[in-house]
Amino acid sequence: MTQINENYLKLTGGYLFSEIARLVKTFREENPSANLVRLDIGDVTEPLAPAVIQAMHAAVDEMAVRSSFRGYGPEQGHGFLREAIAKNDYQSRGADIDASEIFISDGSKCDSGNILDIFGADNVVAVLDPVYPVYVDTNVMAGHTGPADAAGRYGGLVYLPVTAENNFVPDLPRQRVDLIYLCYPNNPTGVVASKEMLQRWVDYAHQNGSTILYDAAYEAYITDPSIPHSIFEIDGARDVAIEFRSFSKTAGFTGVRCAFTVIPKGLKGKTQDGREASIHSLWNRRHNTKFNGVSYPVQRGAEAIYSPEGRQQVRATIEIYLTNARLVREALKKLGIQAYGGVNAPYVWLKIPGSLSSWDFFNKLLREANVVGTPGSGFGACGEGYFRLSAFNSRANVEEAGKRLAKII
Amino acid sequence: MTQINENYLKLTGGYLFSEIARLVKTFREENPSANLVRLDIGDVTEPLAPAVIQAMHAAVDEMAVRSSFRGYGPEQGHGFLREAIAKNDYQSRGADIDASEIFISDGSKCDSGNILDIFGADNVVAVLDPVYPVYVDTNVMAGHTGPADAAGRYGGLVYLPVTAENNFVPDLPRQRVDLIYLCYPNNPTGVVASKEMLQRWVDYAHQNGSTILYDAAYEAYITDPSIPHSIFEIDGARDVAIEFRSFSKTAGFTGVRCAFTVIPKGLKGKTQDGREASIHSLWNRRHNTKFNGVSYPVQRGAEAIYSPEGRQQVRATIEIYLTNARLVREALKKLGIQAYGGVNAPYVWLKIPGSLSSWDFFNKLLREANVVGTPGSGFGACGEGYFRLSAFNSRANVEEAGKRLAKII
Repeated sequence: MTQINENYLKLTGGYLFSEIARLVKTFREENPSANLVRLDIGDVTEPLAPAVIQAMHAAVDEMAVRSSFRGYGPEQGHGFLREAIAKNDYQSRGADIDASEIFISDGSKCDSGNILDIFGADNVVAVLDPVYPVYVDTNVMAGHTGPADAAGRYGGLVYLPVTAENNFVPDLPRQRVDLIYLCYPNNPTGVVASKEMLQRWVDYAHQNGSTILYDAAYEAYITDPSIPHSIFEIDGARDVAIEFRSFSKTAGFTGVRCAFTVIPKGLKGKTQDGREASIHSLWNRRHNTKFNGVSYPVQRGAEAIYSPEGRQQVRATIEIYLTNARLVREALKKLGIQAYGGVNAPYVWLKIPGSLSSWDFFNKLLREANVVGTPGSGFGACGEGYFRLSAFNSRANVEEAGKRLAKII
Repeated sequence: MTQINENYLKLTGGYLFSEIARLVKTFREENPSANLVRLDIGDVTEPLAPAVIQAMHAAVDEMAVRSSFRGYGPEQGHGFLREAIAKNDYQSRGADIDASEIFISDGSKCDSGNILDIFGADNVVAVLDPVYPVYVDTNVMAGHTGPADAAGRYGGLVYLPVTAENNFVPDLPRQRVDLIYLCYPNNPTGVVASKEMLQRWVDYAHQNGSTILYDAAYEAYITDPSIPHSIFEIDGARDVAIEFRSFSKTAGFTGVRCAFTVIPKGLKGKTQDGREASIHSLWNRRHNTKFNGVSYPVQRGAEAIYSPEGRQQVRATIEIYLTNARLVREALKKLGIQAYGGVNAPYVWLKIPGSLSSWDFFNKLLREANVVGTPGSGFGACGEGYFRLSAFNSRANVEEAGKRLAKII
């Protein structure tokens, strides 16, 4: 019989958010009258910007006429979008990134998983703990780890704790690592990275020949002008980093699907016998062979957020979510609950009062307040005792959640 | 320095169609006045069906309003589309496939490459020769092969020749194989598989514990009612097969991006120590972790082709391409060139007259007739001496290509 990839069997549970969806579905079936407020998965709730809607309609109309119909686009994305990104997201912030270094894709989850295709199996991989589960799960699937221990930590991965004790600033790894996943503004903790902190990581990567996989999916939530939006705002990052970005949280594209990955042309990896190889060329080959580009109307929709109107409309929606985050923080503060993040980020990370575990707190909130959040331990062993609340919901629902929490805590 | 996946360095060239695009671009730069007719890549040219356009507009409008806005959909696809597919493409043809066995994706190229993620590294893999290059290249990238020999054949893969000598019907492998890629209507040869032929493969797979990866991207071009559209029309196929389907050639979605993969729930693989594992569960886990579903307006567009109007409109466009294929065949016949396929398929596979190699013929057509086709050897060693012409173009361009060929052959 055909052999399976047994590494999948090492995974200790279902994908976190699918698991929560399953639990919520069961709860709803058992409690059909319950009016749930969902602050769990980071899914946007506000409609697309009018500029995006208009651009998508126009693109759909182009597809209705032979002379303007578009078939296969370049696998790497259409030039109009790559150029808008390079100019507006990078060059305007002093980051030296060219359109040819941008690969449009249908999601950062896909890219941050698929990127492992082009790297070797023997690299030492570091992740923060807690961490976005995709980084860990995709390494498990790719066979880069041993089995999980009782705390859910997989053998072979280097975990860098981020907790209240170290102010959520990870120490540099004590051992040499090859690949480092960093995500700022951070999911799940909502904390941000200063220029100095990122410079330390870039310097570490230079000294150790490491590659940083930098997930900036939430950069649009940064309001503090001193906080970098991109790793490529840091000196020397072009030689050591890959960046993932998404339109999901920036422009409400979670159901529309558009993201991108930036790989500088000078970024190098090596073969076992020490020859250098271009990471950009490898990813380009993967993209050509295993991907067919993003839907044309979607790329036109993404382009529209760089227009003056689009920019303003998208900003207004982000402000809604940032205000939600502030309201969540304030509600928690009133209840005497210690909370982090939620200032330059759409996530609030709270310390669970008392001695409840993350999953017990999840169940308590679900059953007693009909509020859904994400248990911190779902993001890693060091997330135990913490809980994530997302600001992605309507103002009314966020306020309702605050009231319900006040009743049960 | 971070190690790369060295298997990529075994690839003997760029991805075939990217290579051709590069050559055409160079030719255009050197000959700016040349009016090229492209019959190379299988890219559609006719606009989307009005029913699809209407459905996409309606879905975009839903995204403009908070109450109908959709964020993340199920990674496996929306129920409305999975159910339309199960009913119309399978159950209506007597194939016992449930909506839950259908995984919506953004492309068959992606799926047929990504499927290797869930299989083990030691499986013996068989492909036809010539073959769609993605099957081979993705196995090379995944480390399932040795390096290529002088003819471009990778060590470890089992190649099954399909040439005029065996009427393009491959022999069953002489050795046991675990994974078999089959594509019917075939790319590149345009030939189809009878029920009896597919039954032989399903029986082989049962006897040998093999899994068939069946690519039916061109099934909509089948006009002969005796030819099966799906491997699941064959007795016993549910236990041994996965099927890839795409809206690209069915409904002109090459720039819109929607496809699906069918994995029956009973399909099993095994671990090295002989335990059985569900392939459906593994792919589901992969989909949840490394994919975020297809754009909502795109899924609504795909759904629309199953409406009575959509079905009729899509059929009319397919008839245009099928008539093109007939015209190509007839033009070749007049020139005394032996041609295959192009009856239940959008591709015509021709035997190159004289002793020119496939790439020499490519260059001759490009330079002397300004017609672009695909060299047979790009699909494998047994494609040498053959050439693929695609029917995906306007009637006028196809007729023009016929006239130009007549002048130079």
